[in-house]
Amino acid sequence: MLRRLMRTASPPIVLLTDFGIRDHFVGVMKGVITGLDPDARLIDLAHDVHPQNVQEGAFLLWSSYRYFPSGSVFVAVVDPGVGTGRRILLVRTHKHWFLAPANGILDLVLGDERVIACYDIPKEGSRFTLPQVSATFHGRDVFAPIAAHLARGVDPELLGSSAPPPTPELKFVTGKPARTAIVLHVDRFGNVVTNIRTDRSGILMDLHSGRTSVRRWVRTYAQAPPRTPCLMIGSSGLVEVTVRNDSAASILKWRAGMNLNIRWA
Amino acid sequence: MLRRLMRTASPPIVLLTDFGIRDHFVGVMKGVITGLDPDARLIDLAHDVHPQNVQEGAFLLWSSYRYFPSGSVFVAVVDPGVGTGRRILLVRTHKHWFLAPANGILDLVLGDERVIACYDIPKEGSRFTLPQVSATFHGRDVFAPIAAHLARGVDPELLGSSAPPPTPELKFVTGKPARTAIVLHVDRFGNVVTNIRTDRSGILMDLHSGRTSVRRWVRTYAQAPPRTPCLMIGSSGLVEVTVRNDSAASILKWRAGMNLNIRWA
Amino acid sequence: MLRRLMRTASPPIVLLTDFGIRDHFVGVMKGVITGLDPDARLIDLAHDVHPQNVQEGAFLLWSSYRYFPSGSVFVAVVDPGVGTGRRILLVRTHKHWFLAPANGILDLVLGDERVIACYDIPKEGSRFTLPQVSATFHGRDVFAPIAAHLARGVDPELLGSSAPPPTPELKFVTGKPARTAIVLHVDRFGNVVTNIRTDRSGILMDLHSGRTSVRRWVRTYAQAPPRTPCLMIGSSGLVEVTVRNDSAASILKWRAGMNLNIRWA
Repeated sequence: MLRRLMRTASPPIVLLTDFGIRDHFVGVMKGVITGLDPDARLIDLAHDVHPQNVQEGAFLLWSSYRYFPSGSVFVAVVDPGVGTGRRILLVRTHKHWFLAPANGILDLVLGDERVIACYDIPKEGSRFTLPQVSATFHGRDVFAPIAAHLARGVDPELLGSSAPPPTPELKFVTGKPARTAIVLHVDRFGNVVTNIRTDRSGILMDLHSGRTSVRRWVRTYAQAPPRTPCLMIGSSGLVEVTVRNDSAASILKWRAGMNLNIRWA
Repeated sequence: MLRRLMRTASPPIVLLTDFGIRDHFVGVMKGVITGLDPDARLIDLAHDVHPQNVQEGAFLLWSSYRYFPSGSVFVAVVDPGVGTGRRILLVRTHKHWFLAPANGILDLVLGDERVIACYDIPKEGSRFTLPQVSATFHGRDVFAPIAAHLARGVDPELLGSSAPPPTPELKFVTGKPARTAIVLHVDRFGNVVTNIRTDRSGILMDLHSGRTSVRRWVRTYAQAPPRTPCLMIGSSGLVEVTVRNDSAASILKWRAGMNLNIRWA
Repeated sequence: MLRRLMRTASPPIVLLTDFGIRDHFVGVMKGVITGLDPDARLIDLAHDVHPQNVQEGAFLLWSSYRYFPSGSVFVAVVDPGVGTGRRILLVRTHKHWFLAPANGILDLVLGDERVIACYDIPKEGSRFTLPQVSATFHGRDVFAPIAAHLARGVDPELLGSSAPPPTPELKFVTGKPARTAIVLHVDRFGNVVTNIRTDRSGILMDLHSGRTSVRRWVRTYAQAPPRTPCLMIGSSGLVEVTVRNDSAASILKWRAGMNLNIRWA
């Protein structure tokens, strides 16, 4: 009893997946975590990442992680390679932990954060995974139990072996001479979020694809004239295209993964 | 340690937004709250309010609040005016707290509850908001931290300045002489929820729009004949239109926000 | 205070419904539970079961329950008969509790678990339900408060009266001589999950409906050739049909509830 009283609160375990919420997948991960750490504090980041869209997962994780307290454990399972030879990494940065497949989902975070430690998690199973590791559901069999043990305070050296951190490939565009950008994400309101990162509103001359070009800047959604696609700096610091009370993505037919052309001022 | 043991449990913080769950918005709010109050107990009320549909938000909040324990803090962010001059209010009723933009989302609750205190929350930021307040995401920058500080026990006088409570405009229809009602919400099953509030089943003569008229009453979903729209008093005490094992909204083509005509008995 | 310190942590209350998440239904159930047990630990299993699809609910529950810790209380509300004479059961198995309508949603669990006790919960209300029991929302008025009292430690003999356990009708197909199977569920990725349970990959000769036949086996999603429906043993131990990076359900036009024909090797 005393040990229970003396322990500090478990850090949050934050879940990001493309498992959706129609299925039992996320619930089962929570069952596994709760079984190993009854005091686990579980927070859902998002589960409706488009199936296997690693870039979208990378965006959602990067947009969010700095708002979570020190010690938070992020579990990011967008994992087209489940059951193949892809590595599973546990990465420690200054304030946070990230557990994810080595497929680029950590790229945007690792572009901003220094890696303090990185571990390869054995994907064939260990005494810290479920006893049987299936070929198709590592979220349940590997990611969930490893995260729970980490949050409980198990030494990460026991969970995996030291490994070199991955080299990020997905990066932000911050100005000249870049000529192209990509659509990282379309949000619920139809706003088109790009990988152009700037704090200087108006710097871009225009953003176009085919004959469609956007060049008008606004500061808030309410400032945009009706049915006119406008540029704005979104709440994550990235340039996005918005249409007032409507979906910019539907009107422009721009979607996640598309390439865009930039003309700078 | 002792202080931690002695404190009473934090009241629930209940989140209602139109942010959807595809994005990181709700998860980030939870990150901010958890960072300020590690013991916060977070409950999702709903996040799929149709974008910017304040009436639907008002309905969901009113249908729910009385089932939550004393001290619960409701955070209702359906906020078409984010970044403009609209006020942010913190309202205390007999048992609960409500933090929301002053746009009518609290109207149905305030029609039933006496306001004990009302505060204007500075939307340009304060020492109780995040250091930087963006123009587009007050859920993260203002609502989440204010709710966390309130739940932690910060004196509300420090969070904002006393203000007159808003005057509700959205109201229930309870009988004659009202001739029109509105559709507040279409639920997952396609049931059409109106703003007609009565405990007397059968009182209405009929409810119609154009040539479509509904007048048959049932007490349970199972009583309704197949493919026949029927009136019933739903679980929140409002008149709704239901079709057995089917969507009344699809069959009638009635949707949230529509006006309906009433003929009383 | 001391009593609070001495009590053991509440077991998780795990919620499975067809209420969706657009409405307030699930949030209200959590409000009721939190009001009765401030320390309740709530876990969402799934809420997007197709409306009134009891078989799908049975599958999701069976796929999940063994991953939750001892003492977990499962509340499964897929309940087409709400407000009619259907019974509400509280079932105790070796490790878990299940609270559900007596409509078959527990069938797959009860095929694997021995029933240690079974109680009939009075659906007209009791001192352990909400004071008023509506005709349409037993999730709020009966299931939520009964679950909360059980998790708090109330003797189940007080919550209902002993009753014979139900006899499962929905069962798995495990080999010859069965000639037909059913589609239990289509998951988010479009994988078609059947009720064929086997650990011997390749045992089936083929699975067909009309002229469409599937007979190729793979072990992981990544092994499947493009646009080719393949058989695999899914993470729950059931045979499913998968198409790499695509929806098997859309390609085959197979959907939940459909009958399939089996030809064994």
